[in-house]
Amino acid sequence: MSARELAGVYAPVATVFDESGELDLERYGKNLDWYCGTPLDGIVMLGSNGEFAALDFDERLRLIEAGAAAIDGRKTVLAGTGAESTKHTIHLTREAARLGVEYALVVTPHYYRPRYDRQAFLRHYQAVAEASPIPILVYIMTTYTGVDLPTGIVAELSQHPNIAGVKDSAGSAPKLAEMVANSADDFAVLAGSASFLYPALCVGAKGGIVALGNVAPRECKELYEFFQQGRHGAARSLQHKLLDPNAAVTSRFGIAGLKTAMGLVGLETSDPRPPQLPSTPEERAAIEQIFEDAGLLATV
Amino acid sequence: MSARELAGVYAPVATVFDESGELDLERYGKNLDWYCGTPLDGIVMLGSNGEFAALDFDERLRLIEAGAAAIDGRKTVLAGTGAESTKHTIHLTREAARLGVEYALVVTPHYYRPRYDRQAFLRHYQAVAEASPIPILVYIMTTYTGVDLPTGIVAELSQHPNIAGVKDSAGSAPKLAEMVANSADDFAVLAGSASFLYPALCVGAKGGIVALGNVAPRECKELYEFFQQGRHGAARSLQHKLLDPNAAVTSRFGIAGLKTAMGLVGLETSDPRPPQLPSTPEERAAIEQIFEDAGLLATV
Amino acid sequence: MSARELAGVYAPVATVFDESGELDLERYGKNLDWYCGTPLDGIVMLGSNGEFAALDFDERLRLIEAGAAAIDGRKTVLAGTGAESTKHTIHLTREAARLGVEYALVVTPHYYRPRYDRQAFLRHYQAVAEASPIPILVYIMTTYTGVDLPTGIVAELSQHPNIAGVKDSAGSAPKLAEMVANSADDFAVLAGSASFLYPALCVGAKGGIVALGNVAPRECKELYEFFQQGRHGAARSLQHKLLDPNAAVTSRFGIAGLKTAMGLVGLETSDPRPPQLPSTPEERAAIEQIFEDAGLLATV
Amino acid sequence: MSARELAGVYAPVATVFDESGELDLERYGKNLDWYCGTPLDGIVMLGSNGEFAALDFDERLRLIEAGAAAIDGRKTVLAGTGAESTKHTIHLTREAARLGVEYALVVTPHYYRPRYDRQAFLRHYQAVAEASPIPILVYIMTTYTGVDLPTGIVAELSQHPNIAGVKDSAGSAPKLAEMVANSADDFAVLAGSASFLYPALCVGAKGGIVALGNVAPRECKELYEFFQQGRHGAARSLQHKLLDPNAAVTSRFGIAGLKTAMGLVGLETSDPRPPQLPSTPEERAAIEQIFEDAGLLATV
Repeated sequence: MSARELAGVYAPVATVFDESGELDLERYGKNLDWYCGTPLDGIVMLGSNGEFAALDFDERLRLIEAGAAAIDGRKTVLAGTGAESTKHTIHLTREAARLGVEYALVVTPHYYRPRYDRQAFLRHYQAVAEASPIPILVYIMTTYTGVDLPTGIVAELSQHPNIAGVKDSAGSAPKLAEMVANSADDFAVLAGSASFLYPALCVGAKGGIVALGNVAPRECKELYEFFQQGRHGAARSLQHKLLDPNAAVTSRFGIAGLKTAMGLVGLETSDPRPPQLPSTPEERAAIEQIFEDAGLLATV
Repeated sequence: MSARELAGVYAPVATVFDESGELDLERYGKNLDWYCGTPLDGIVMLGSNGEFAALDFDERLRLIEAGAAAIDGRKTVLAGTGAESTKHTIHLTREAARLGVEYALVVTPHYYRPRYDRQAFLRHYQAVAEASPIPILVYIMTTYTGVDLPTGIVAELSQHPNIAGVKDSAGSAPKLAEMVANSADDFAVLAGSASFLYPALCVGAKGGIVALGNVAPRECKELYEFFQQGRHGAARSLQHKLLDPNAAVTSRFGIAGLKTAMGLVGLETSDPRPPQLPSTPEERAAIEQIFEDAGLLATV
Repeated sequence: MSARELAGVYAPVATVFDESGELDLERYGKNLDWYCGTPLDGIVMLGSNGEFAALDFDERLRLIEAGAAAIDGRKTVLAGTGAESTKHTIHLTREAARLGVEYALVVTPHYYRPRYDRQAFLRHYQAVAEASPIPILVYIMTTYTGVDLPTGIVAELSQHPNIAGVKDSAGSAPKLAEMVANSADDFAVLAGSASFLYPALCVGAKGGIVALGNVAPRECKELYEFFQQGRHGAARSLQHKLLDPNAAVTSRFGIAGLKTAMGLVGLETSDPRPPQLPSTPEERAAIEQIFEDAGLLATV
Repeated sequence: MSARELAGVYAPVATVFDESGELDLERYGKNLDWYCGTPLDGIVMLGSNGEFAALDFDERLRLIEAGAAAIDGRKTVLAGTGAESTKHTIHLTREAARLGVEYALVVTPHYYRPRYDRQAFLRHYQAVAEASPIPILVYIMTTYTGVDLPTGIVAELSQHPNIAGVKDSAGSAPKLAEMVANSADDFAVLAGSASFLYPALCVGAKGGIVALGNVAPRECKELYEFFQQGRHGAARSLQHKLLDPNAAVTSRFGIAGLKTAMGLVGLETSDPRPPQLPSTPEERAAIEQIFEDAGLLATV
């Protein structure tokens, strides 16, 4: 059975906690059920916005199990399975596959990054790809990891039959073009943020995994459709319109901002796990204003 | 008399030295004369590729004088006039205007950058714009200066009637879109490298000031034309094709690489001023191969 | 029962794996037993050199249990218990205390570092300190985490009765002095590397947690003793002599280099966990030469 | 005639402007005259604190001429002569020598720093040293230049008979020790800030070129003397006491803060050249409080 094609818009969904800070899988499942009714092409559990780094391995697997069950085949299912060691990354990836995940998103190892050279990254991803029953994606998240995997390494990894694509959140226009130009034809370069979804598509990206997809899935998919239809003027306008709401749920107010916006549009939500702090009242007001100005309230 | 509109493709031309390391204005003029016969929309003297930082103020003004005379109105004339102090920036800008420059490219001051906050940058550019007889452009060159002027400052500066645009060499796709979306309508956002000229145009940039324009002016302008004509597929293909030659004359082999490529295509050239080192034989061979593969040799 | 005073030289011991990449607690215990016969003031399990980031939580607790049993009260026992979330950091710290650890070394959370402001760090450490049955140390490891906790935050944390000190691996001479000058009197500033143990002591540090202590514990302690005895000339000379061997097991050849050196001096050792690569033959030869030149071979 | 030995405490004196922003050489000379009556070992014109980057070459030479005349042999005279090009650095260094400067302080070239490798730096400094009639010092000022010259390059340069030392402003304790341990015996490593003067001396530095010397020359020299006399406890206490005033005139409030402090202690002063902004009223009040608390007011 071959995996569904990687193309379009995916949401890296936020994780929901209960009042005691434990996973709230029921409310998490309610959100997933709602996303399944949107035009999103797939759902990514345990991305950075899913606070994977704040969950232990057991919590990650319980979340994947519950999430895959809630999605129940209605959308392509991706999940973050990266860990610092190759050993644990393989373990998590295999478990995720067993639980129904179709693609594993493998963040670059990063703690010992001064020690990770080209060879170390190649061996890591090749070992995971060899051991994984499902295709994997390379996940470059420079803001959080400090690792900006060079195009040459991505291009070499793209030759592996079980490495299906890359999510790059850095937004460098030249690098996106370089990765497309130098990678295997069936390798999917995916934008890591809605802030550059349109220009990424222009240089050959196949889609995006975008935090804004959590709260404005229809608009993000509409941008993708405009591009597919060759409606570049409409795509440019929508790209501009989405910049402020996107910044509000990413660079400006962080995961706390995303979770605040989720509440504003009617989704189940919670504070992020400490030490991340919840949005302040001033931040909440600013987010609400931005979403109101962009006509993005009452999405659900 | 209003300035010619800022749009299209501009080449930040390299400076030519003689065997003793002094300005060779005659050979420099020969290059400019050749550029005037290409479809370039204008010529930028004393950008970073023009080694402005390695020239003293007197040399800069002599170069501008000779260059403007050589161009003789055939192309829009821009020149870098930035200095660390507001005082000297104003002096150089006024002198450049007197010598025939139509737009001044003002690099962000940077030596004391931990001391330059929003207020310092605003006052600097506003003071220069007030004092300048010609419109100025903000020049963001983060790789060399360490300064990445935030969108908010650019947007505020765009409101000044004598600040005509910005050249940004960093290539952040989200920032290019943000600058377009948040700046005055007649403010020109210009890509600072051919490596992202096409996606920059997609998000609303008016053109680019691109080092590759020194050695492949027709191809760079063709990319711009493809975009103008809505030929996105052709633009994307050409963008991909130009990535390697562009890297060869910028990030990969630097100004020495650019000057090597200039010789390969038949232009007058020289080594850069020390401490920049000339291309090694291995680098020369690599550049030649890249330009041959891209069909860019024998341009002149 | 009050904790033993934090002063002197501590070794952040390397973790030993078996041929299949699993924890080898028996050989690890043999090393600890040997360290107990050296003049080291204490042993730190699961520091960065102990590859804590490459171990899952269960492995960490098993290592601590075995290690504390092997040390059996002969040396002060510290262990790294930091995790990205406050919740898991508290869990690991409590478990470590239960297993016999006397001080918990809590690395700064770092994955979501653009989101961690002063308030986030203060609340994290204060929450851990409140919940911990044993005193904690703040662990600043900027090279790996990208977080350089400012002196002001360290100074404020030093006021908490259950925060006993800080290990700073960055080696900024002004910051070491500032932390000493601005922190509570009984707060221990500890150097994070033997490369600056002597100047750190000069500005008021109480000692160090130094990777070189793994392979040259007597020499590291001797440096400390020279300082205590006011023998500054001898301390300076020994500091100079230890620079090369120290770089070999830290910045230059990394944890792989440390583990190679351990083998050279007769300790139990192994490769680091992938994606960290083992020393190459050239690196092994360089390390052996450096240790021979410094007279540090055959330590055990 | 051999140069006076480089050892002790030097002040990188601030440049004084008149109300129209031009050099005020008379008031500058008054400050120099006062410094000649302090225990400072020498005076450095046109360091970063002397705003060399905001002066054109002609201004720099006029300042040097006036300054050397004012000092009139009473103190060792140093001056910054670094420029981006090797050519202009040599020119400024020769002119400075002709005007009476005894040592040239040559900041690392930095604008094209991605292009400057080991070879480029070696050739630059060797060419300047060959051409200079006076000994030169390598000046590493990472905060402003983005260049952190590695120990290996410094060590190799230390072998040149006309390269007398290095001023390093970064404050890395290991690097200071490494430079001392690996450089020629008569090569002077000088601390670039009073914030780490004492630990730098401990690891073998010969002295410092310290901004705080502008406003607290006696205290800075006293710290040096304590070290020379082996009074380590007194040196440590004084080092701690000088941290806050030092930060006020360097990292915290910048050159504007230094110039404010100069006015507070009775020296001639002015605002820095724009785009550097003058101290705000709140900053002035903070600086005054810090200097009062440290007992450093009314120095002159």
